[in-house]
Amino acid sequence: MSGRGGGEAARPSLETVAERAGVSRQTVSNVLNSPQLVRPETIARVRAAIEETGYRPHRAARTLRTRRSHLIAARMHAPVDGINGAVLDSFLHALTSRAEQRDYRVLLYTAEDDAQEIAAYDELLSDFDLDAFVLANTHRNDARTTWLAEHGAPFVTFGRPWGVEASHGWVDVDGAAGVYDATRHLIRRGHRRIAFVGWPEGSGVGDDRRSGWRSACAEENLDVSGLTRSVEDSLATGRAAGAELLNASCAPTAIVCVSDSLALGVWTEITARGLTPGADVAVIGFDDTPTAAVIGMSSVAQPVGDIAEASLDLLTQALDGAPGGSAAAKQLLLPPSLVVRASS
Amino acid sequence: MSGRGGGEAARPSLETVAERAGVSRQTVSNVLNSPQLVRPETIARVRAAIEETGYRPHRAARTLRTRRSHLIAARMHAPVDGINGAVLDSFLHALTSRAEQRDYRVLLYTAEDDAQEIAAYDELLSDFDLDAFVLANTHRNDARTTWLAEHGAPFVTFGRPWGVEASHGWVDVDGAAGVYDATRHLIRRGHRRIAFVGWPEGSGVGDDRRSGWRSACAEENLDVSGLTRSVEDSLATGRAAGAELLNASCAPTAIVCVSDSLALGVWTEITARGLTPGADVAVIGFDDTPTAAVIGMSSVAQPVGDIAEASLDLLTQALDGAPGGSAAAKQLLLPPSLVVRASS
Repeated sequence: MSGRGGGEAARPSLETVAERAGVSRQTVSNVLNSPQLVRPETIARVRAAIEETGYRPHRAARTLRTRRSHLIAARMHAPVDGINGAVLDSFLHALTSRAEQRDYRVLLYTAEDDAQEIAAYDELLSDFDLDAFVLANTHRNDARTTWLAEHGAPFVTFGRPWGVEASHGWVDVDGAAGVYDATRHLIRRGHRRIAFVGWPEGSGVGDDRRSGWRSACAEENLDVSGLTRSVEDSLATGRAAGAELLNASCAPTAIVCVSDSLALGVWTEITARGLTPGADVAVIGFDDTPTAAVIGMSSVAQPVGDIAEASLDLLTQALDGAPGGSAAAKQLLLPPSLVVRASS
Repeated sequence: MSGRGGGEAARPSLETVAERAGVSRQTVSNVLNSPQLVRPETIARVRAAIEETGYRPHRAARTLRTRRSHLIAARMHAPVDGINGAVLDSFLHALTSRAEQRDYRVLLYTAEDDAQEIAAYDELLSDFDLDAFVLANTHRNDARTTWLAEHGAPFVTFGRPWGVEASHGWVDVDGAAGVYDATRHLIRRGHRRIAFVGWPEGSGVGDDRRSGWRSACAEENLDVSGLTRSVEDSLATGRAAGAELLNASCAPTAIVCVSDSLALGVWTEITARGLTPGADVAVIGFDDTPTAAVIGMSSVAQPVGDIAEASLDLLTQALDGAPGGSAAAKQLLLPPSLVVRASS
């Protein structure tokens, strides 16, 4: 991350300038965008206030009203274990190529947390003519969408808003339905003791996926006591959770996981015991990573191409809409699909 | 890919304009960049010639001399099987985050072949203020580097020039040394019949890696007759090559592969025969993909972080150099490292 660009608090806003010049926000905006509408003495007063406050107008916010840069910013997520990041890389691939078909380009940024990401927005809006942002990995208490909405920057998220009402455009995948389908598939194969290895409670995505397992089991009155584990996402924690489940007196015959990282950990534990995934203990992951495909592990696949396409649809609708951004925001929940392989 | 942007041939050049206006190229350049140096009637004549010829000056080429956009273009490679693409995604990750530390941003483009990539350069140079390009996957008869050099666009390649003399900056990994190390490692473990599964002859990268296997075997006077296969890169072809080798009367006890895709194919064939990779037949891949790490397959790792860092060093040196691009171009060959796991 670059260290440039001040925090939001330190930065003088349009309001600061308006207050200092004793004019309305609209007048300041007119001076910046349509000076022909403003009397020369007012222009002089506002310009002086801009200089005194050090206000730096967002180039993008200014130029958006008049023309398109055809530049979309998207975050390149840092590789963690090379497994779960794969779906975000895939999404970025799809977004880049489909954006080009619509004559848009993707500008990358990186960030390690929400605060860094917001600092990146601030810097990007100052330094480049951006049309919009595409965010991924929405989560509870997501400060990023609030910041972008407050700054009037058009954006769409891959991921729904968790725990808040929000009117911005988003595209998401129905994780609960995906895990429900995976569990139903195991039930059809005759499994009665089906475990779920998920993330610690409180994560929107994780809780949603777990609910799919819970409802499929509840429909069949399957006993799920002792059959769920909540661990951080990694191969090692997945393997440990798998070991714990398989060591229990009433071990599961099938394990559904919230991610391929955890499922690969479980898979490793199964094979390390000399057992065969599928024949002895079934295992199903989530995200259909290349590794799952290579080793023959079933997994729930997200339709990244469709997500990218739908995100761009929403963005262009928003950009073509009324200048005030009043075009109706749309929300779209896409169905994932279970890819069945030898492990189930 | 976007269809905009004409081909190189169709596009009028600075020379076309100079000829039409009856002035030198330098004069045309001055009209574009330093009109204060040119007499008004000459400016008028050149402007008329620009209009008549339809000449569209590259914004970037023009602005590069005066200021930096801090924007670098890099290609996002299309996912093939999700295995081999991983190293290019990794490189892009490293490039993006390290570029940001130097206050540069990465703009993405996609292309399916050299011609499309060149069309993308043309369009990007027209539409955006770009400082430079970072190319990957150099190969024989690479039209891309020639085009960029001819158009005066600064660039650096991840990959050396193959089969041509070239003075541009590049960073590459010593593939021959990596495969040599892998083969030496197998020899130390007692293997005497070591096979190599590579790509069809004629690929610079593939031939280079194969040469490392050949020299390590030659040093020990190992018989390599019948022990090499040349196939296109995929899991299926790798598996078929592995089957062929293992079915031979004098089957190898170890198989080195030019890529992880091919090695994972071989690995699949070994396990399908009820054999254990490492204990029964050793297998080593190239690129150290996440999948290799998960299944415990040895592989040669490329230092993507160092490659990204060195590429940016070369780029900034070139950008800080003399305006004519006369700063000495540098070439850098980095050593890969063998990651030993259970499969060898």
